[in-house]
Amino acid sequence: MDPSGLSCPSPLTASGRILLGHGSGGRLSAELIREFFLARFGNPYLDRLDDQAVVEIGGQRLALTTDSFVVRPLFFPGGDIGRLAVNGTVNDLAMAGARPLFLAAGFILEEGLALDDLAAILDSMRDACRDTGVLLVTGDTKVVDKGSGDQCFINTTGVGLVAHARYLSANQARPGDLVVLSGPIGDHGMAVMSRRAGIAFETEIESDTAPLHDLVGSMLETGAELRCLRDPTRGGLAATLNELALAAGVGIEIDEAKIPVRPSVQAACELLGLDPLYVANEGKLVAIVRAADAPALVDAMQRHARGRESTVVGAVTDEHPRMVVMRTAIGGMRIVDLHPGEILPRIC
Amino acid sequence: MDPSGLSCPSPLTASGRILLGHGSGGRLSAELIREFFLARFGNPYLDRLDDQAVVEIGGQRLALTTDSFVVRPLFFPGGDIGRLAVNGTVNDLAMAGARPLFLAAGFILEEGLALDDLAAILDSMRDACRDTGVLLVTGDTKVVDKGSGDQCFINTTGVGLVAHARYLSANQARPGDLVVLSGPIGDHGMAVMSRRAGIAFETEIESDTAPLHDLVGSMLETGAELRCLRDPTRGGLAATLNELALAAGVGIEIDEAKIPVRPSVQAACELLGLDPLYVANEGKLVAIVRAADAPALVDAMQRHARGRESTVVGAVTDEHPRMVVMRTAIGGMRIVDLHPGEILPRIC
Repeated sequence: MDPSGLSCPSPLTASGRILLGHGSGGRLSAELIREFFLARFGNPYLDRLDDQAVVEIGGQRLALTTDSFVVRPLFFPGGDIGRLAVNGTVNDLAMAGARPLFLAAGFILEEGLALDDLAAILDSMRDACRDTGVLLVTGDTKVVDKGSGDQCFINTTGVGLVAHARYLSANQARPGDLVVLSGPIGDHGMAVMSRRAGIAFETEIESDTAPLHDLVGSMLETGAELRCLRDPTRGGLAATLNELALAAGVGIEIDEAKIPVRPSVQAACELLGLDPLYVANEGKLVAIVRAADAPALVDAMQRHARGRESTVVGAVTDEHPRMVVMRTAIGGMRIVDLHPGEILPRIC
Repeated sequence: MDPSGLSCPSPLTASGRILLGHGSGGRLSAELIREFFLARFGNPYLDRLDDQAVVEIGGQRLALTTDSFVVRPLFFPGGDIGRLAVNGTVNDLAMAGARPLFLAAGFILEEGLALDDLAAILDSMRDACRDTGVLLVTGDTKVVDKGSGDQCFINTTGVGLVAHARYLSANQARPGDLVVLSGPIGDHGMAVMSRRAGIAFETEIESDTAPLHDLVGSMLETGAELRCLRDPTRGGLAATLNELALAAGVGIEIDEAKIPVRPSVQAACELLGLDPLYVANEGKLVAIVRAADAPALVDAMQRHARGRESTVVGAVTDEHPRMVVMRTAIGGMRIVDLHPGEILPRIC
């Protein structure tokens, strides 16, 4: 079976228009990036398809990352677009093992946005900056006429210092490595969806939005042979593992029984017909690590507040390259593919 | 006369909502930045209110700047949103005297955007990157549902290296300094407006969008005592000079007869009832320089393709601090204030 055949012929240009699925983090997103962006801007930094670039300036290794946030609604249980915008970019820096230093923020505000809402969003950003020690040093604000935007979009770009000598990248996974997950999945996506759908569950689901740079610091201190770190945001754990498998040309096998999902999130997913594997997280990470180092790594992660439920959820294999396969709870095997379209638009 | 009284009491929160004028680059923008952003994030980098932050990392001085582009229409005579997004950020780096190195780009695409338009925009960005030697190393793409955006918004964030030892900042202007302008004003704004209004002039007006880092390099080479560089984009020359006057606590006096305006731009402005002083430029700069160094500086600028029509247009004075005054063509004096609202929405 040749998994590359799965994305060919391309549905990308069938309509000649941008579809919601192009922003999903799934297969259409991957095609858009490959055919429209890499085809024009390909360079050794961009080609790695990591969530950040690590560049060298005057002997210093700096991580640079950018993200636009278009989440709807602006406020949801456990967070808001402001907190998300800071933590999300801090985390993309952290996934390179970088210490977050400076932040640039660009706002696109829609005419009519309530100033009280803007104030609340900025309060969140200020608090999140303080919590992570990152400094907002430059910004830009644009206003678009009513109907040309949706209240508030935020772009955050982060610069961090890579103080270690490791090369963490999606293409570094090797057969035999283990896959470590830092905690239960699906919280952020289901928190937003529950608010959007107006659903109330017995236990309110809160977004897991949180900065992960300190957890990563503890992981690096163990000296474990880390290959790669990723935060499974848009597209969920499924998209992240597929990206890693594709970039490294390896297979990944995960074990459903080992993947933590809160009962409330599981219940909400079932109610809405969603698979938690595809639901966005904003405070979790996936680490690929040399098998021998996994126990010490997981131990260190579990001792950190952001990684209490860390656990090994799978392994890298040389079988079925570029494909993610899951051993299901009832003992079968199932392909975990990139989702072809969009299931949770504007989740971040 | 106390010009600080001009912005008090604040109209900012009168409606409790974001108005188009908050994105104008005029007085409402300034108030929004002061009362909402600086009040929360104030730090020595942000407080300078320059178009970029210059930070030090490991002994290197780096410039960091971000800008969101929401220009409408996407394509206009002389350029498009893609070229603008690269050149605009390159120029904000250049205004710190930085060599542009790396670019991060975030796209917010509206469902339904024609892929051909996206391709044309990305082609422009690729060409502009090549022309300026800047490398696009990381990016992000989000898609919003139809009606929640307007085809294509682009955020670009740039990192550049400040190789010189000068401290260029808005607050550095001193009485006696001269004000140098690199060429005719109003081209970009009137090119966009003419396309938007469906007006055809005898001579088509083209946007002046262009990278200015090389011109700045030539200026730095002269060894002139430069105080500050700014590109007069949104809000035009009037906004830029007001920002400089406010930041440095000085007065600025300009001479209308010396400010170059193309006849076609002048005619278009008159037709639409606009003052070219308030119209955006995307390939011009204003330099504040020690008077004794101005002749050599202007000479060097005139020898550069992007500065052929460079000229001294005014001077910094200790009279009327924080106020810009213009000697009109007919010999009178006129206050050039920050525009209270928005005259050219979504011009960049």
